Amino acid sequence: MLKVDLNSDLGESFGNYKLGCDAEVLKYVTSANIACGFHAGDPTVMRETVKLALVNGTALGAHPGLPDLQGFGRRNMAITPKEVYDITVYQIGALYAFAKAEGACLQHVKAHGALYNMAAKDKKLAEALAESVYAVNPEMVLFGLAGSEMIIAAEKLGLKTASEVFADRSYQQDGSLTPRNMAGAMITEESVALAQVMKMVINGRVATLAGEEITLKADTICVHGDGAKAIEFTKKIRSSLLEAGVDVCNFLLNR
Amino acid sequence: MLKVDLNSDLGESFGNYKLGCDAEVLKYVTSANIACGFHAGDPTVMRETVKLALVNGTALGAHPGLPDLQGFGRRNMAITPKEVYDITVYQIGALYAFAKAEGACLQHVKAHGALYNMAAKDKKLAEALAESVYAVNPEMVLFGLAGSEMIIAAEKLGLKTASEVFADRSYQQDGSLTPRNMAGAMITEESVALAQVMKMVINGRVATLAGEEITLKADTICVHGDGAKAIEFTKKIRSSLLEAGVDVCNFLLNR
Amino acid sequence: MLKVDLNSDLGESFGNYKLGCDAEVLKYVTSANIACGFHAGDPTVMRETVKLALVNGTALGAHPGLPDLQGFGRRNMAITPKEVYDITVYQIGALYAFAKAEGACLQHVKAHGALYNMAAKDKKLAEALAESVYAVNPEMVLFGLAGSEMIIAAEKLGLKTASEVFADRSYQQDGSLTPRNMAGAMITEESVALAQVMKMVINGRVATLAGEEITLKADTICVHGDGAKAIEFTKKIRSSLLEAGVDVCNFLLNR
Amino acid sequence: MLKVDLNSDLGESFGNYKLGCDAEVLKYVTSANIACGFHAGDPTVMRETVKLALVNGTALGAHPGLPDLQGFGRRNMAITPKEVYDITVYQIGALYAFAKAEGACLQHVKAHGALYNMAAKDKKLAEALAESVYAVNPEMVLFGLAGSEMIIAAEKLGLKTASEVFADRSYQQDGSLTPRNMAGAMITEESVALAQVMKMVINGRVATLAGEEITLKADTICVHGDGAKAIEFTKKIRSSLLEAGVDVCNFLLNR
Repeated sequence: MLKVDLNSDLGESFGNYKLGCDAEVLKYVTSANIACGFHAGDPTVMRETVKLALVNGTALGAHPGLPDLQGFGRRNMAITPKEVYDITVYQIGALYAFAKAEGACLQHVKAHGALYNMAAKDKKLAEALAESVYAVNPEMVLFGLAGSEMIIAAEKLGLKTASEVFADRSYQQDGSLTPRNMAGAMITEESVALAQVMKMVINGRVATLAGEEITLKADTICVHGDGAKAIEFTKKIRSSLLEAGVDVCNFLLNR
Repeated sequence: MLKVDLNSDLGESFGNYKLGCDAEVLKYVTSANIACGFHAGDPTVMRETVKLALVNGTALGAHPGLPDLQGFGRRNMAITPKEVYDITVYQIGALYAFAKAEGACLQHVKAHGALYNMAAKDKKLAEALAESVYAVNPEMVLFGLAGSEMIIAAEKLGLKTASEVFADRSYQQDGSLTPRNMAGAMITEESVALAQVMKMVINGRVATLAGEEITLKADTICVHGDGAKAIEFTKKIRSSLLEAGVDVCNFLLNR
Repeated sequence: MLKVDLNSDLGESFGNYKLGCDAEVLKYVTSANIACGFHAGDPTVMRETVKLALVNGTALGAHPGLPDLQGFGRRNMAITPKEVYDITVYQIGALYAFAKAEGACLQHVKAHGALYNMAAKDKKLAEALAESVYAVNPEMVLFGLAGSEMIIAAEKLGLKTASEVFADRSYQQDGSLTPRNMAGAMITEESVALAQVMKMVINGRVATLAGEEITLKADTICVHGDGAKAIEFTKKIRSSLLEAGVDVCNFLLNR
Repeated sequence: MLKVDLNSDLGESFGNYKLGCDAEVLKYVTSANIACGFHAGDPTVMRETVKLALVNGTALGAHPGLPDLQGFGRRNMAITPKEVYDITVYQIGALYAFAKAEGACLQHVKAHGALYNMAAKDKKLAEALAESVYAVNPEMVLFGLAGSEMIIAAEKLGLKTASEVFADRSYQQDGSLTPRNMAGAMITEESVALAQVMKMVINGRVATLAGEEITLKADTICVHGDGAKAIEFTKKIRSSLLEAGVDVCNFLLNR
């Protein structure tokens, strides 16, 4: 039976600032990527988000980012592999403690924003990221862009991986995402995005922006929870998958 | 046989800023309180300090502080017990991950600066601090000012505690430290400080600033490593203790 | 002719985090207190808020706060008068530069949150605050709680002052605001709040929580812009004042 | 008569962290680049450094950097021109206020670290930097790498510029500095460095790493103050210039 995980970035509020509809989106996703205080989130938000995810039976994951709160971790920074290792170990540990305090464990780690994008393409950064996950707990799953350096580095290390795909982004011939500043990067037509997801999950294939088909591993789908429309689309993806006989579940069970 | 632990605040460098003589003081202390990035320290410094402590056979402890890098965590802040819990869980977890990555564990937690001082006197903050330690790992030892609310709260929770004493600070009738802004707060005469330490460890007593003697539990002595003079004094305390037949050791062994 | 100013806290967004309905509330207020990056706001938000205020003809003011983004500057911190001076000079300067870049000047300075509350009662902090304003530009107006140490310190220095009153807060016998943790601190009945404002502006008097009337200077009224209801109430205050023949204007014109 | 300015990066301490020998180096330099709190420095350090510079008759300049305290502003960040403009206006303003509070003005602005390096090569970032200086005060001098995009952008805008040269760095054929990760980037032989400085100032020429001579404008020389050896070399540069009949002075006087 086909299986796929639905993951979403959560716990992105900070102090007095509220972001996202976490309580709503947690009803539909199976894995939560929880911000760890560098690009978003704070200790109080982390505790609350961990609790909320557990109530919903959603698996917990650390979502480490660059130390750039003002830029929301979206601005590339010239950090060294050693720095990637250090900031990721730190952030995984911080979230681990909140999980532990609630009697739970961390299922996975997924890098955020610019850290994700840089590590997807830079072998050394990817290796540092994978090593940090392995060092803290080799049982955790590394979530990474399907076909990226992150997945390669994690597999080399013997880590479990989850190849991540996107519903609303178009793909290039080499399996990378079309950069946001290029035309056609975002898939705005909902039916097109939905069809892309179904094809990736069921056939393991995606049509690139150039029109050709490529092979793609789809273990987990990234969905958004930042508004009513995003949540509606998440519900639709979930129900379409279930109707097609795909099991929507996380990686805590034996897969 | 009498036993006592020597602890020191370490890993207080930050980025380009260097502080303390960690490599030197680690030769003489048995427990390291490692800053966790809020009042001092950063992920890279934490990794390096954990490694250095392990090389020296020094036990690792988290040294969580207030989120006030500019004030070095020394300015009281009106934070709630829940916030104390949250920032402490976060910081313990961050350090735990570096210890885990090196195959080690955390022996203890000691609050830093204003957080230490506030929790020494405020029952609710002390309870929140103790609960955070217990929640992350009930096997850890809470280091707290001898006779303070921190020790009371930790014992009530069933945590192991280490009553901390100071060589260079004078004591009040109620066992609290003389506030730094009062005359006689600091003991500047080295021989007096040394005699105070020996008496606290061997007799469990200390002469207060007012001249009377009170009872005091001395499980661990806080020593400094911020300069050649401080390190010389630490060496002197250590050798005086050993000469007097006191075992200088941490809490990892069965005591 | 009676005159009064309407001020509101603005520019409180930060990076990816949006807060407040600045564009809306700027239609009704005459003075803007713009966050300066310590408790809220960032350089980009400051530039945008300055421009938006100028388009609306609203006078610009610096709204310096404590260095506590996570606590939104609302947690008291034990900072020294010298530190108050330093962080206020810094923040006024930062906002000044954005005003200058747009060809405008700063009308006033109003401390934020815990800094406002601490300086309202602590003479030394109030003096440090007033001195910082004077040092950067003695032509600026210091906004402070009516009857507070801030007003006293500013007048002693020869600074222009604006005594600030609140529509939705009840007053104590000594002219201070009822602390938020006491019953009756907030005036939730809109008609009561409106009547209180009108009486303060027109009669210079207010009924305290205990029921007696005291004298109060009302140069500027603090209004909120964090939601549709708040903006409706601001509109109502403004129109009620105008109907009663009160001129609603800031301090840039000769008053 | 030949004239040249000596500038140094100052005020780089932060809170409890001390950096540099400001009091010593201020005896020999004519322009102070004062950190503004983003990559180094804090409000208290800024006030103290401004005062110290004024006592020594050293001209004040803002030294804005990237918002990266942990990386000391030395890690490139993918910020937009608008962000460069915003963070520079902010930081210039903050320092301006401390200068104003002491009755002084700002002579110049010099970008720090990665911001300097990025703006030296990126036309759009250079233009944003120049515009920020012009917007706050068109009378200020922009310090920039000789021949770089910063100088070009500033001149286009009508700003006064100071072409900066380095004693201890080797040059490439195009006038850029040899990147630090390339062999021969640093000139470690003191006599070679001194000879390079004298030639740049007196002949307006420098021998590149490849051995050829190129033309170079030398209005100001960057010297270091981070240790006894650096200060000795600064003294030597200064005395060598004076002996050669070169006037060592800043840009406040009519040049």
